[in-house]
Amino acid sequence: MSAKAEAVIDIAEYMQSVGRRARSAARAIGRARTGMKNAALLAIATAIEKATETLKAENFRDLDAGRRHGLDAALLDRLELDDARIATMAAGLREIAALPDPVGSISNLNYRPSGIQVGRMRVPLGVIGIIYESRPNVTADAAGLCLKSGNAAILRGGSEAIHSNQALSHCIHAGLAEAGLPAEVVQVIETTDRAAVGELIRMREYVDVIVPRGGKGLIERISAEARVPVIKHLHGVCHTYIDDMADLDKAVRVALNAKTQRYGTCNTMETLLVAAGVAGQVLPRLAEQYAAAGVELRGCEATRAILPDITPATEEDWEAEYLAPILAVRIVTDLDAAMDHIARYGSQHTDAIITESITRAQRFLHEVDSSSVMVNASSRFADGFEYGLGAEIGISTDKLHARGPVGLEGLTTQKFIVLGDGHIRT
Amino acid sequence: MSAKAEAVIDIAEYMQSVGRRARSAARAIGRARTGMKNAALLAIATAIEKATETLKAENFRDLDAGRRHGLDAALLDRLELDDARIATMAAGLREIAALPDPVGSISNLNYRPSGIQVGRMRVPLGVIGIIYESRPNVTADAAGLCLKSGNAAILRGGSEAIHSNQALSHCIHAGLAEAGLPAEVVQVIETTDRAAVGELIRMREYVDVIVPRGGKGLIERISAEARVPVIKHLHGVCHTYIDDMADLDKAVRVALNAKTQRYGTCNTMETLLVAAGVAGQVLPRLAEQYAAAGVELRGCEATRAILPDITPATEEDWEAEYLAPILAVRIVTDLDAAMDHIARYGSQHTDAIITESITRAQRFLHEVDSSSVMVNASSRFADGFEYGLGAEIGISTDKLHARGPVGLEGLTTQKFIVLGDGHIRT
Repeated sequence: MSAKAEAVIDIAEYMQSVGRRARSAARAIGRARTGMKNAALLAIATAIEKATETLKAENFRDLDAGRRHGLDAALLDRLELDDARIATMAAGLREIAALPDPVGSISNLNYRPSGIQVGRMRVPLGVIGIIYESRPNVTADAAGLCLKSGNAAILRGGSEAIHSNQALSHCIHAGLAEAGLPAEVVQVIETTDRAAVGELIRMREYVDVIVPRGGKGLIERISAEARVPVIKHLHGVCHTYIDDMADLDKAVRVALNAKTQRYGTCNTMETLLVAAGVAGQVLPRLAEQYAAAGVELRGCEATRAILPDITPATEEDWEAEYLAPILAVRIVTDLDAAMDHIARYGSQHTDAIITESITRAQRFLHEVDSSSVMVNASSRFADGFEYGLGAEIGISTDKLHARGPVGLEGLTTQKFIVLGDGHIRT
Repeated sequence: MSAKAEAVIDIAEYMQSVGRRARSAARAIGRARTGMKNAALLAIATAIEKATETLKAENFRDLDAGRRHGLDAALLDRLELDDARIATMAAGLREIAALPDPVGSISNLNYRPSGIQVGRMRVPLGVIGIIYESRPNVTADAAGLCLKSGNAAILRGGSEAIHSNQALSHCIHAGLAEAGLPAEVVQVIETTDRAAVGELIRMREYVDVIVPRGGKGLIERISAEARVPVIKHLHGVCHTYIDDMADLDKAVRVALNAKTQRYGTCNTMETLLVAAGVAGQVLPRLAEQYAAAGVELRGCEATRAILPDITPATEEDWEAEYLAPILAVRIVTDLDAAMDHIARYGSQHTDAIITESITRAQRFLHEVDSSSVMVNASSRFADGFEYGLGAEIGISTDKLHARGPVGLEGLTTQKFIVLGDGHIRT
């Protein structure tokens, strides 16, 4: 047997044992009381703070290796752990401890004509596998969210962050031990071998759901190969539609914020749709402000009749997730044309209408099939913290199970409970 | 090009056009008012009643072909449409019309510190593909549930029911037309070519979810090959645990009902677990009644010490879904041993405890990871009608999205809605 084949078998065996331990730990964390889970979260936060120097030293090894391997500046920045980022990780865990525990909540417990009571109890999913890229703070966030929601976690970070993630793993295990919970509740994969990911996404008997966090390429690859269900966030081609019944001051304010507040996020507007009736009034005002912010506009022919200096938009622009200071602009005849455009080119992430018409707002809210639909608000609000979920593990563009920002509740499911007194079915 | 290759290409093209039409119809049915959907359901019910003679004639063609192809008696029985079954189909559609419409319901609309209001709106999934076997009544049931929940449906019944299903398709289209809804809201696949199923379960751009209804073989095959999410009901290895703090009269009543009320259903008890402390008292009483009902018992060694005449149980018996008058019986030391057995051998479908202890009932409810968990009630209650869902498209043993009986709500999802007044993120 070749060395390579042997290594592959070892990875498979290693991942199987990780899976078995996770499944067994899931029962322990699933029945752990809220107080115990919170104690673990607080203890992990403290352990991370106390380990600040060690974390920086281990992170330095990753940064050093990254530089030697030619990682670009943006990637190195995401990889870096400094005092402030370490403090933010600890604070994030304390915030998760302060959130309500979703597990065990019983809803809709009602008597049925047969005499039984039927209700739904919120319960953990079981074992959650998280696959992510360079940012090591995801290790603490993801561990915290899984722990609070009563799930066992298997975390697989990027190979470029291996030393940082292993150092965080020690802090997590110290905190779990202090609270009397088994170390296997959170397992951070120790190998950088890519075969580990292939095993993780196929272990149906041990893993209940995979949450990939990272670029579109990572998520598409995992979705295509996974045999375990995936909660995925593919991409955000978000639209703002300025209706001809819009308050144009609101329209300018919101459209500017939706594009320029941050460029690299999935809830940033990528295409602006403007009703023909107000385009002549609103586009010159917007163009001036976008120019001041350094945003390049790419417009349809009608847009270029108003703004002759901008680049012509092509079919690819309507489909583009720029994640950059570029905005596609299209003039549409009315609300229906705007919704047709969104249905055809959108990614079902977040879309907004600016209008003073309640009828049109209602139609947009009901008919646009996206995970977040907004009226007179910036698409940048599509976020777990802004929505009051407390924290998020990602933003799902799937329709099943969890849609939009996924917080603690998205990491749980509901089972039916039935209470009888010797009731039988007749 | 060979005739076979040509036929395959035709099926692919046919299914693509079915998918495109369904996606387009999904927007129309998704925004249809409740009254319009109910009018369609009532019109379909009436059309089915009026077509009774035609339905029986077309069904006779299927029965005749089935007999010629040597279908067994059970299959022929499931295939048959008589006056009573046709009336039941129509009544079922009228019951669905009477259920509340889940679409558009807004929950948890709250103000956030930023000033925006965030809530969740229940919306249809989009396009639902249903794959089922011989019973033609599923055509009417599934069409009705999808229609009421605002989804477009693609229905693929068994080839043995093709004439019955096409006749039902005419009734459905007559009803949709009467209500002013497009015919493409419900499409019944017109070909018996198996390649159509292969296409249907891979059309990610046109189909949002597949619901297979049928035997374990069908569901496993579809789950393995599907590229579209599947809501599946694999199998039910349901347990009843008689605790040593049980009221033994209740225990006998419930354990008898859970096994004998019907044998072929997924919520029928397949393994009885008995606490060692009460086994000597309760097992002889139960054995007598099971014998009277014609149920064969297969027991562990401890059980056979009490009931020496029964068959010894093997490892396979603990995993068996008999769907027959056979019951595996095992004596366990206590609640923990019972829950360990269920975790190891159960199918996470429905499990019940019989006990008067509230502490043990609570532990069982919280810790047993099944889609339905019951106290002092027969597992036969695990059913959409009994739970008050009004109707069910199946019982899901998945954890994500829909768990347990899946009614109208399981065929919908929730999106976030955000209401602002020109709010921007800072």
